Formats: sequence, C-alpha cells, structure tokens
Amino acid sequence: MSASLRIALAQFDFPVGDIAGNARRIADFIVQARDVHGADLVLFPELALSGYPPEDLLIRPSFLRDCEAALQGIAAGVTGIVAVVGWPQSAGAVTYNAASVLRDGAIAATYRKRELPNYAVFDERRYFDVDPDDESCVFDVASRASNGSVTVGLVICEDLWFAEPLAKTVAAGAQLVLVPNASPFERDKHAQRDALLAQRVAETKVAIAYLNAVGGQDALVFDGASVLADGDGLVHAAACAFEDHWLVADYDPATRKFTPVAWPAEKDEGRESLAWRAIVRGTRDYCAKNGFGKVWLGLSGGIDSSLVLAVAVDALGADNVTAVRMPSRYTAGMSNDLAQEQCDALGVRLMALPIERPFQGFLDALSQTFEGHAPDTTEENLQSRTRGALLMALSNKFGGLLLTTGNKSEYAVGYATIYGDMCGGYAPIKDLYKTEVFALARWRNAIAGSPVIPEAVISRPPSAELRENQTDQDSLPPYDVLDAILLRHVDQEQSRDDIVAAGFDPGTVDKVLRLVRISEWKRHQAAPGPKVSRRAFGRERRYPITNKYPA
Amino acid sequence: MSASLRIALAQFDFPVGDIAGNARRIADFIVQARDVHGADLVLFPELALSGYPPEDLLIRPSFLRDCEAALQGIAAGVTGIVAVVGWPQSAGAVTYNAASVLRDGAIAATYRKRELPNYAVFDERRYFDVDPDDESCVFDVASRASNGSVTVGLVICEDLWFAEPLAKTVAAGAQLVLVPNASPFERDKHAQRDALLAQRVAETKVAIAYLNAVGGQDALVFDGASVLADGDGLVHAAACAFEDHWLVADYDPATRKFTPVAWPAEKDEGRESLAWRAIVRGTRDYCAKNGFGKVWLGLSGGIDSSLVLAVAVDALGADNVTAVRMPSRYTAGMSNDLAQEQCDALGVRLMALPIERPFQGFLDALSQTFEGHAPDTTEENLQSRTRGALLMALSNKFGGLLLTTGNKSEYAVGYATIYGDMCGGYAPIKDLYKTEVFALARWRNAIAGSPVIPEAVISRPPSAELRENQTDQDSLPPYDVLDAILLRHVDQEQSRDDIVAAGFDPGTVDKVLRLVRISEWKRHQAAPGPKVSRRAFGRERRYPITNKYPA
Repeated sequence: MSASLRIALAQFDFPVGDIAGNARRIADFIVQARDVHGADLVLFPELALSGYPPEDLLIRPSFLRDCEAALQGIAAGVTGIVAVVGWPQSAGAVTYNAASVLRDGAIAATYRKRELPNYAVFDERRYFDVDPDDESCVFDVASRASNGSVTVGLVICEDLWFAEPLAKTVAAGAQLVLVPNASPFERDKHAQRDALLAQRVAETKVAIAYLNAVGGQDALVFDGASVLADGDGLVHAAACAFEDHWLVADYDPATRKFTPVAWPAEKDEGRESLAWRAIVRGTRDYCAKNGFGKVWLGLSGGIDSSLVLAVAVDALGADNVTAVRMPSRYTAGMSNDLAQEQCDALGVRLMALPIERPFQGFLDALSQTFEGHAPDTTEENLQSRTRGALLMALSNKFGGLLLTTGNKSEYAVGYATIYGDMCGGYAPIKDLYKTEVFALARWRNAIAGSPVIPEAVISRPPSAELRENQTDQDSLPPYDVLDAILLRHVDQEQSRDDIVAAGFDPGTVDKVLRLVRISEWKRHQAAPGPKVSRRAFGRERRYPITNKYPA
Repeated sequence: MSASLRIALAQFDFPVGDIAGNARRIADFIVQARDVHGADLVLFPELALSGYPPEDLLIRPSFLRDCEAALQGIAAGVTGIVAVVGWPQSAGAVTYNAASVLRDGAIAATYRKRELPNYAVFDERRYFDVDPDDESCVFDVASRASNGSVTVGLVICEDLWFAEPLAKTVAAGAQLVLVPNASPFERDKHAQRDALLAQRVAETKVAIAYLNAVGGQDALVFDGASVLADGDGLVHAAACAFEDHWLVADYDPATRKFTPVAWPAEKDEGRESLAWRAIVRGTRDYCAKNGFGKVWLGLSGGIDSSLVLAVAVDALGADNVTAVRMPSRYTAGMSNDLAQEQCDALGVRLMALPIERPFQGFLDALSQTFEGHAPDTTEENLQSRTRGALLMALSNKFGGLLLTTGNKSEYAVGYATIYGDMCGGYAPIKDLYKTEVFALARWRNAIAGSPVIPEAVISRPPSAELRENQTDQDSLPPYDVLDAILLRHVDQEQSRDDIVAAGFDPGTVDKVLRLVRISEWKRHQAAPGPKVSRRAFGRERRYPITNKYPA
C-alpha cells in the first residue's frame, strides 16, 4: 500500500560553534516536527550541529568530541520520528562532513559527503575526507498516516552538483532523496539551482527535497529558499528566502509528488529584493551573534552611508542605530541637510561631531615636519582618520558596532582611507559596485511609501568632500565605466587584453587594473561584509599582496 | 662506466607573479649553471616560474597562458644542459603543480605533483589537480666529465612526505632524485626535514637533492637551507638559510654520494638565529617587492618597537629607517631617553611628534558627548589612534612603509588598538610571543658588540603608557603564564579543559581563551607578518569571527 510521507524541513539558523545551543534547538525541533507538524521525517541543514562553516574549529579535537557527544545526546531522545542531522564526524585521523539518520534513540545510519567543494568560499578539503568505502545511504521511513513506508536516500549539498552520488542513491532504492545544504547566497544562483534540480530529476525520476541553511555568518549569508522537486520534474516554488521557518510537505510515492502543507513561498525573486534582504540579514545576524544590539555609522550625505543607514534600520530598527555626521571645512551645507533629512525620515538619532579641532591638532602636530610640502592626499586621509577615530571612540565608550560604508568599487581601486572610512566591524555594502549601490537605493525607495534615501543623495555627484570642489570623478573614470571594467576583471577574471578587446580605453584599463593591484594590502585589512556577487573580495578572492603580475 | 654528474641547485628568490622577470632570470641561470659552474643539470624551486604561492592568480586564464608561453620560451634556449623548472601547467579545465625537464630546445618531460597539501598555510587543492595517469618522471642525464650518464627522477615537495611517489620513481629506475620545494620557514622544521630525508633514503637507497625556495612572500618566508642526502643515508650540512646562492655538487652513482663543489653551508642552526633571519628576510623582501625603500615605525621605548627597529636596521640599513617617538602626558621620561639611546646606537634618525594637540582635539570634540562618563579604554585607544594617524601621515606624505610592532601575545588576546598601534603594512614580530620577543632581544644583543636594544628596554616592566602608572600586567596574567596558555591553545589546539588539567588556574585560562575568541575580528583586519611558529595567525589559523564555541 502506498504511503504518504510527511516531511518537515527545518529552515532555521544554526550559529557556528554553538554546539550546545544547536543541540538543544535540534532536539526541540525534532519534538515540534513530530508533535506539532505530525511529520514522519525531519531534515536539518548541512552541519547544523556545528554551524557552517566552522573553519579551523574543525581542527580542534575538543570541538569534534563535543559534536559527537551532542549528536549522541540528540539521538538518545529521538522517538516516533526519523531525524536527519548534519554534523562533522571524526573517525580517528579523518573527519567527514556527515549527516546521520536518528531513530528510536540511536544513530541508525550515517551518510558521508562525497564531493567536497574547495573553491570560491569553500575549503572543505582542508577539513574533510571522502570515505573510500563510499556507500549510499538509504533507509525506510514509515508513514503515520498510512501503513506503508518510503525508502529515503540522502546526499549532501555539493554531491547534487555531480550526477553520480544521486544516481547511486537511487540505484540503492531511494524513492525520495533529501539534500541538506549550506549554500551561501549569491545573485542569480536560484535559477541555476532550479535548473540543476530539474536535470537531476530528469536523470533519475526521483523526487528531491532540498533544504538550505539560513542566516548570516561573517561574510556569508545563507538564504534558505529551500525547494521541492517532484519526481515528474516539477520544481515547486522556493520557500521564502532569508527567513527562519518550518517547511512541511507530504510526499506521495505513488505519484512521486509533493503536496506542500506549510510552505511560506518566496514572493519576490527580483535581483534587488534578494540582494537587499541578503545584506539586511547579514547585518542583523552579524550584530546579534556577536553581541551587538546597536550600531553606529558615519553619515556623510553621500549615497553609500545613506544606503547603509537604510540597511541598518531595516536590520535593527531605527532605535538601535545612531548616525554621526562629522563635518569639516570642506563639507557642503547640503550634505548636512541631507543627513538630517534622512534621519528625520527614518526616525534615527543623528549626532554631530565636527572634526575641525582634532584635524587641526594633527595639522599642528605635523606643521614643522610638513613645512614646504604642499597639501595632498595626506591631509585628506587625516580627515578620514579623524572621523574613523571619533566613530571608534563612540563605539568604545558606549558599546555598539561601527558599520563601515564602503562599496565594492572603492575596495577594488583603493578609493578609501585605511584606518579612516574603512574603520568598522562589518561592511554591509562591501560587495556592491557603486552602480549597484545606486540601483539598490532606487529600488529601496520605490518599495517604500516615501523615500528612505533622500532623492538628492541619489542625484548629486559622488564626492569624498576631503578638499574644495572635489568629486570622485576627478580621480576615477565614470562609475559606469569603472564598474564595467571591474566586473570583467574581478568577477570574471578577464585580463587587461580581454578588456581592451571588448572596447575599453587601454589607458583607463591599465589605470584601473593597477589600482586594483596596489590596493590589495588594504583589502587584506578590511572588515567582512556579506557576499552578494559571484566573486566577493575576501575569502572568495585570495590574492597575494606581493604580486608582480601586471595583467 | 660510472659518470660523475654535476648538479646545480638554484637557491634563489622568484617573486610571485613576476612571470616575465622570473623567466629571464631562469634563462640566465641556466646559462650560468652550464658555463660558470659546468653543471650537467640545473634545478629550480617548486613553481619558480610563477613564484609560490600565486594564490588566486592561478584562477586567471591569462596567468596560466603567460606561464606556458614563458616556459616554452625558456625551453627553446636550453642547450648543453638539462634544466628542471617548476611551473603551473594548465591542461584544459585542470591545472597541475608541475616541473618540466628542458633539454635541447624543448620540453622533454613533465612531472606533476601527486600529493597536494591543503592544510596549514597551503591551499593546493583549491588550484591543482592530480594527474590520474600518475606516471613517474625519470630521465637520463649525460655527464660532461665522463662518458656515462645517470638516471634522474623527480618528485615535488609534499610528495617526499609520502613514501609512494619516491618509491615509484626509484622503481622506474632513478639513481638520484631531485626534489624542488617551496617550503616556508617554521621553527624546528629542519630537524624534521632531515629525519624525513634519512628515512626516505633508508627505504629506497637512493640519493636525494632537496632544493628549497628562498625569500619572503607576504606572511611566508622560504628559508632555502637546501640539502643533499647520499644514497647511504648521510644527510649533508644544509646550505646557508635565507640567502640566495648557487649550490653545486657532484654526484657519483657508483658510490651514491655527493661531493659538494660550491656549497655555502649554514653555520648557525640555533632557534634564535633562524627566527631572526626569517624576520629580517621577510621584512626586507616585503619592502623591496612592494616598492618600499624606506620604513617608518613608532618607537615607544618598550621592547616590541625596540626589537622591530633592530630588525628594520638589519633588513634595510639604518639610513632607510626613521623612528618616531610620539610622547603623551603619560609617557615616562625614561621612554624618551631609551628611544634616543637606541637610535643613537644604531645611527637611526629619530623624530618626535608629541600627540598632545590632536589628542586634546579629540577630547574636545567628544567632551559634550562624553560628559559624565569616566575615562576608560576609549581615551587610551584615542591616544593609540592619534599615533597611528600621525605615522600614516608621514608614510603618506613622504612615502615609505609603516611597520607595525605588535607581538603574537598581543594579537592573541587583542591587547592592541585596532586602527592605532595595529596600523601598518607589515608586522615583523607578529608571530613571536612576548617571551620570545625578550629572548630574541637578548640573543640579538649577545651577538652584537654592544647592545642594539638598550638593556633597560629589556629589563623594565612592559607598559602601554596610556594612563598613569599602567603596566601590561594590570590587565593580563604574567607573560610567562599568558604565553604558556596561548602556546597550548593557539599552537597546539588544546582545549580549556586540557590546559586546566595541565595545572593552569581555571579562571586565568577562561579569561585568556575568552580574550582570544573576542579579538578574532581584530586579527582579521591585521597586517601580515612573517610566519615563524608552527601555527601563525592569519592564513594558517582560519577562525570564524562569529563563533560561539567557548572551549
């Protein structure tokens, strides 16, 4: 007789390193899945017990021991349901990225990930081994709603991107395959993922339940957006991205179809919406998980800090955000007005700390030493560093995290002052090019009733306001040109010749690529920020500082 | 008839990314080896053509194409000698860590590294593949001095740490095996390396010529110290460490022994000597390769900056170093005197930039905001940040690199001001615990005719001098206790319970481990410095910032 199997997918956040807390949550969720949702089976994300990615915590013997003890503890409490829990399994000198099947108070089976990603943001071969015995993991799960059972298989994340692990699992008898993931958000990945699911179903005719982790972890934001694919090839609507929730569905092995029971579906798969929510979630989680209830940021009246302010308010609420304007002799009156206008609109407290006295103090301290030398970027950097020190002083004295407001174009070409405007613990828009910053500001305003970013902030020419009548375009190509070159070079690995061949001015390309190269040292000292693009600076783009390659 | 083969090992520095320059150097060295040294065979280090480690340059198609073209160019010029050159070989979608045998104007054979290290500072599985065909590489090299020839084999670096690659190479007929390496310095590694060579010779009875790269590359310093092992098990004296030179030896297949011809041998394998030279070479090369002829550093009169000054003078010469003392209201007269005394002794220019005016400017700017709040670390950090901004202003105005002077104990527990004394491009003593800083200072004084670090700097109690009568021990355990806990926790991965079981006070251990955890964000924004220990912060210890694991 055909069984309808009720599965519950736990699209929740499991913070890195919080073994004890994650174990408690997992145990509670198992009971909820059984008692509240009537599930026969509950699935947790990849490495839910340790959080993902634990990085070099995986090298600590005590960490691995604690994970095993916690998993045993969870298993002991499992009854009346089957639970699949991801964890790092240590076995002598080797460690596996594992997911165990828990039932009747014990670990019934353990699957070990076969395909270990070691590219982009992933370092799994630093930590994990592949089991040479390489067995598939299939197990029967009885349906409470009927007398039958379903044979369920299991592969983990990267395994799905290769044909073999799934094919073997299906060959071993799986009627339904579970895929726990920890797949970080990047733009345009959902379509790729759905196409992959359709392809795997076409190959195997087997239904797939794909559960992704959710939540921010340093430079990564896991977007959830879990999804079901029926055995006939239909890929269901993804679950709501960037949110923690239960996903419950019934699977009927006779039709090979899922029927969603509780499935809050994603409503807006637009590029701007997803990027915005990635940044907001990343900022919120970085603060919460690192113990910061409040944030500070410098608000200049320019587009970057204005956008970061809007992000911060969406992430933490206006009451938990303090903006600080730090005018100098070069600050336009309009900048002050726009900062005030935005804070009024958002209900954010705005402080003013003029930088003149400490800045003048620096000039005085250096006046003899600098005698006979014309002002240059040194004095500009001193203004920026004065502001950085003031903001850090607020954070030191009153607590709260300093957000830094640089964008990807700035980080790319070093158009930012290290120890100045680069000060801060988290960089929300670090992975957005300047043109993307503008696009996101316009999008955010469009979905709001009234502008959250003053329109004049969007329309005025960008300027660092570090000398009279300065604009960014004095030193840089127009942002549409700059960003197009950067996108090719940074995100797409194109060489100088490739970019020139695409029609860009050779002198401009040479200048931009040189700036990218010589500012590597600044990026090495930069705060983390949420990955949004296909190639984010930081752990995803690992360049030597000392590097003589010109192209 | 038995041939005596003359081999030349090119223990030289091949900077990362400098494909064109490295290719020219390699071509010149091949001619030198043949014409000056009369060598039959010349060996270059692992990935000499690209430099090591090229990191994500290896993802750039143009980089891989340029390497291939350069290798072809080198090969075309090879005549009258056999050259073995390391390079990254791209073959369609895969890339190999390769070494090619060049002779008679062509690439005669290519060996592909089998064992790809992906731990500690190594990420080779991010970039390289293992050739599934897995063939050994052996080739005959004729002797110019006799009529015979020798069958030579080739494995690369990590391959030697496993028995199989060498065993296969010997089984394929090798009488002598070449091992090009790019093995970064760490303390106490030489003895381990020599024991390995003895073991491999015992297993195979084959002689081994082990060539290591030399030179600094960001946080790594390759130490050279190349070595020969005879087929009867004798491991010869290593070549002089941290220096560029030719190593020439004759190999006699009849006796399976090497006779050094030109072999400047290492004279001092002492721990302090090697550490000192690693730091000096790392500092010198970071400066030279990044275009800095001169350096700046803040000189406080304390041990850390005093030691860094001595390093800088040894690395760059006194004329290229400027020390800056930046007294405040809390600076002891003795600190000023000691700074002057050391600069006089070393012939270094000492500038004075009192911080009072900018520091007071900050206090004024914040006076209203801070009203009613007692002074705390905020004001201490402001002093440190004032100094950081002044030093950066000197670097910005006059050029030259700012060295930062923090030690490993400080980085570990966050006893350093981010954007303050952490400012700078390179951190020479970043990987020395405070107790090691003292030991190295004493050693450096002992080898000098007169103290290069004033004795009073070594004997006075460490203090940050950021408030009245402050000493480091007000906030931290004594350094011998602190460092012992840190060594266990950071370098040896011991847990809280392990360390307590070893007899340390639980409260102290908890405090130290908590400080290590909460200062991870600072280390993520820290400048690179030369790896000296078995577990250096930075690329070797990759911890999440967001981390709830307490132990």
